[in-house]
Amino acid sequence: MAYGYFCTGTHERPAVFDLFFRKCPFKGEYTVFAGLKEAISFIQTWGFTSDQLAYIQKTLSCSNEFIEWLRHASTNSIKVYALNEGSFCFPSVPLLRLEGPLAIVQLLETTLLCLVNYPTLVCTNALRHVIAAEAINMDGTPTGKTVIEFGLRRAQGPDGAMSASRYTYMGGVNGTSNVLAGFMYGCDISGTMAHAFIQSFTDEATLPDTSFIDANGVKHPNFIQECFDCRQELGFTSTNKGELISYAAYARVFPRTFLALVDTYDTIKSGVPNFLSVSLALHRAGYRARGIRLDSGDLADLSNKARALFTKVGTIVNIDYFSTFTIVASNDINEHKLLELKKSGHSLDCFGIGTNLVTCEAQPALGAVFKLVDISGEARVKLSEDVGKMSLPGNKTGYRFFGDDGSPLCDYMTLTPEPAPIAGQPCNLMLPYNPDPAQKPVVITPAKVVTLHHLVWDHGTVVDQSIKRDIAEIRQSVLTQAAGFNAIRTTSPTDPAKYQVYVSVALHTSLHTLAKRARGEL
Amino acid sequence: MAYGYFCTGTHERPAVFDLFFRKCPFKGEYTVFAGLKEAISFIQTWGFTSDQLAYIQKTLSCSNEFIEWLRHASTNSIKVYALNEGSFCFPSVPLLRLEGPLAIVQLLETTLLCLVNYPTLVCTNALRHVIAAEAINMDGTPTGKTVIEFGLRRAQGPDGAMSASRYTYMGGVNGTSNVLAGFMYGCDISGTMAHAFIQSFTDEATLPDTSFIDANGVKHPNFIQECFDCRQELGFTSTNKGELISYAAYARVFPRTFLALVDTYDTIKSGVPNFLSVSLALHRAGYRARGIRLDSGDLADLSNKARALFTKVGTIVNIDYFSTFTIVASNDINEHKLLELKKSGHSLDCFGIGTNLVTCEAQPALGAVFKLVDISGEARVKLSEDVGKMSLPGNKTGYRFFGDDGSPLCDYMTLTPEPAPIAGQPCNLMLPYNPDPAQKPVVITPAKVVTLHHLVWDHGTVVDQSIKRDIAEIRQSVLTQAAGFNAIRTTSPTDPAKYQVYVSVALHTSLHTLAKRARGEL
Repeated sequence: MAYGYFCTGTHERPAVFDLFFRKCPFKGEYTVFAGLKEAISFIQTWGFTSDQLAYIQKTLSCSNEFIEWLRHASTNSIKVYALNEGSFCFPSVPLLRLEGPLAIVQLLETTLLCLVNYPTLVCTNALRHVIAAEAINMDGTPTGKTVIEFGLRRAQGPDGAMSASRYTYMGGVNGTSNVLAGFMYGCDISGTMAHAFIQSFTDEATLPDTSFIDANGVKHPNFIQECFDCRQELGFTSTNKGELISYAAYARVFPRTFLALVDTYDTIKSGVPNFLSVSLALHRAGYRARGIRLDSGDLADLSNKARALFTKVGTIVNIDYFSTFTIVASNDINEHKLLELKKSGHSLDCFGIGTNLVTCEAQPALGAVFKLVDISGEARVKLSEDVGKMSLPGNKTGYRFFGDDGSPLCDYMTLTPEPAPIAGQPCNLMLPYNPDPAQKPVVITPAKVVTLHHLVWDHGTVVDQSIKRDIAEIRQSVLTQAAGFNAIRTTSPTDPAKYQVYVSVALHTSLHTLAKRARGEL
Repeated sequence: MAYGYFCTGTHERPAVFDLFFRKCPFKGEYTVFAGLKEAISFIQTWGFTSDQLAYIQKTLSCSNEFIEWLRHASTNSIKVYALNEGSFCFPSVPLLRLEGPLAIVQLLETTLLCLVNYPTLVCTNALRHVIAAEAINMDGTPTGKTVIEFGLRRAQGPDGAMSASRYTYMGGVNGTSNVLAGFMYGCDISGTMAHAFIQSFTDEATLPDTSFIDANGVKHPNFIQECFDCRQELGFTSTNKGELISYAAYARVFPRTFLALVDTYDTIKSGVPNFLSVSLALHRAGYRARGIRLDSGDLADLSNKARALFTKVGTIVNIDYFSTFTIVASNDINEHKLLELKKSGHSLDCFGIGTNLVTCEAQPALGAVFKLVDISGEARVKLSEDVGKMSLPGNKTGYRFFGDDGSPLCDYMTLTPEPAPIAGQPCNLMLPYNPDPAQKPVVITPAKVVTLHHLVWDHGTVVDQSIKRDIAEIRQSVLTQAAGFNAIRTTSPTDPAKYQVYVSVALHTSLHTLAKRARGEL
């Protein structure tokens, strides 16, 4: 296409493209925009190597003139407007608006879509899981329940995994088991033992070192024996011995964070009793165990049974905190299962979610698109049989209206030359895709108006400082907005509340006039 | 976990881990193994930087001794056995088997899973799409219909896209629109214009240069006018003018490969007639247009209508090849839609498939796992409530049996020390997960036996030369196997044919004895 523009002499026409989506993912009513920082990095470093140019020339049979033009093509000639990363965003409102020479902006299309589509999708998915797990209160503050991303091994492609860890954290999860993501992006990291650790032990002979330093610095010669003694004292006689040894071995190393995977042999008959035996030994050495992880079976039922056993044993040995041990659940959890667990009642505190969180199995792609909306100052529209698939023409700016109580009312888009709406003044709002010229505008007087689109990249320079915010800051803004948008309610899969995007009368008229003209009706 | 092993002194115990999956994806009965080359590259370069070690020490509070051990830890101490990349593979048969120090092999787990899970999934998905599109004959040779991967903009994460292009090509698609994948991996590349190209033209004024060099080297002053004249001659009076100009502009640049996107305004009333007008002008200039792309609407119906119009106009202007113009379809195609199109009848020649091909929406993750099967020469098993989730214990070797006609009969696994099965000699085969000790073995006499597991990495060196095969060679072997395995039949979503994996009597006994012991029944 770029070569097509070049050969017809239209490659440097000033063009405007919008990157937007038409429908919120997961049958939901909100989306969280992510990927801006990576998109801007891409724009910053965009260009072709000599090897790549040689490949393009050979494969596409292009002229030398075009290859020379490509060699010197640069994003110094473009402007990028964007929403803030982590913004709640809605159908038809551009996430990015690019202005610049037609062929340059066109060449950026596919990579920009790739850099925005998945991050936005997985960030939104993460927030939905965080809400379904009841990990945040209605005001966005943490409830104490947590969600940990466990998806590295199942993510799509090596860097799919890194993107997943980064953007699920941005979307509100509490940590990741991906240590490299901790190192690179500053996400909190978290993890437990796997079955292999437990299986690698069978008897005392498999454990060379059994010594243990207690919380007072005193060395105990055989911590394993102490754990077996505790098991005896608690009356658990038939638990798996290798499992108990493996827990003791792990607790020796992580006495302050000991969390046991309990389903290798039998969760309630072996895993939980062995965990309690080691927890008692740790307690007597001045430490406090953390909890267990359930990885198979009926998670609600097992968590309730484990909690009951914690409480029962805690009462017997007279240790209060036993009843409050953390119970982590993993094993193919998704948003739907979280909602089911919530309904059935459970005793879980933390959810380790891998496959379904990172691959977004409920909808594995966001359908964001990149459409030409203006060329040489003339607005353009793409028609479609499906009225919702039309693009909004022209260079547009988006605004968010807030009510007296500070909560968002609706989004509003104008053609960029139009005056911005003003707080306290009534504004006429049109539903964009309703073609009826007799449509009566909705009149809203916003208490506050926030401009959504900011100039981020201006002819070679990053001009928006918000791009420098760290991931924790963006994550916090997502959680704050979730409260403002009442996302807890809009998440409800059965009754999502609709948030409306309106346009100005001028934009509405432009859209439907252009559509008629393209159809030959004008 | 590695720190746990280290502190208990078990980190260098000799261990064997299997990487395998339990169920073929997409409710199918075959899987194509992919990702080996990348997995071996990872093993080749594995290690930690000083910065990473500092992060690990700080975050996990590890001892200096452990960090020093990690600093010098190396994959020179391990062996990797694997199936050939591109092999058909089945549940429970390891894709990779790793032998080496417990903690080293454990540290490789998650990344290896990531490097194998998605490539294998998307490669399998590609072959299923190729088969559903009727792009290969029963003997694996091309039919002439083609599948092109269009997924870059919708893939999960920037490198998710690169993996998708690479492994869908390996799985049999004919090309990709991802030019970088062509450059990096040698995939064939293919693409057409997008709507923006068409929308960017409205009238002659938008096209500075209208000249054209015909096939004989003669310069025509105004090719646009020639296209309008052809339109007039064919009697198409009401097509969109900007669209015709955009086609003419594109055809000027790509006169030998002109393929028009026809749904911007109205496929049958505008797009196809404009395409035919330009094709006629090209024909008179000594060139031959290629075809059209449909991107919305009822693809079967539109393709039949377009084909009818091609034939009708071809007859009028007396040009035979008009009736055989290529018709490409895109727009949310997946395996299911391909099967529906096949049933309803259509005139499509090529399918451009993006989102559903690369994100594998029908099942976005392959559940391959990595399990400890042997430590210090003792076999290990992981129990599960679900008998199919047990792992097969011990160091195992897999074989594939072939019948007299050269087609595969079944896979067979032994404990590695057992003698290999021999062609022409009867072999006793057991169903692995049936615990009944009275199970009567199936007796099969293979005409040919192929060993599935090869030593690929041996203490620091790549020892299997098959890893150097290029992507086209692997792709060809996938298509050849598809014929051998009769994948066209096993793909049928309603009646997939089952391919059986058996084990030796010794392996069967080992599994069920270990399972009983772990359950405390022995």
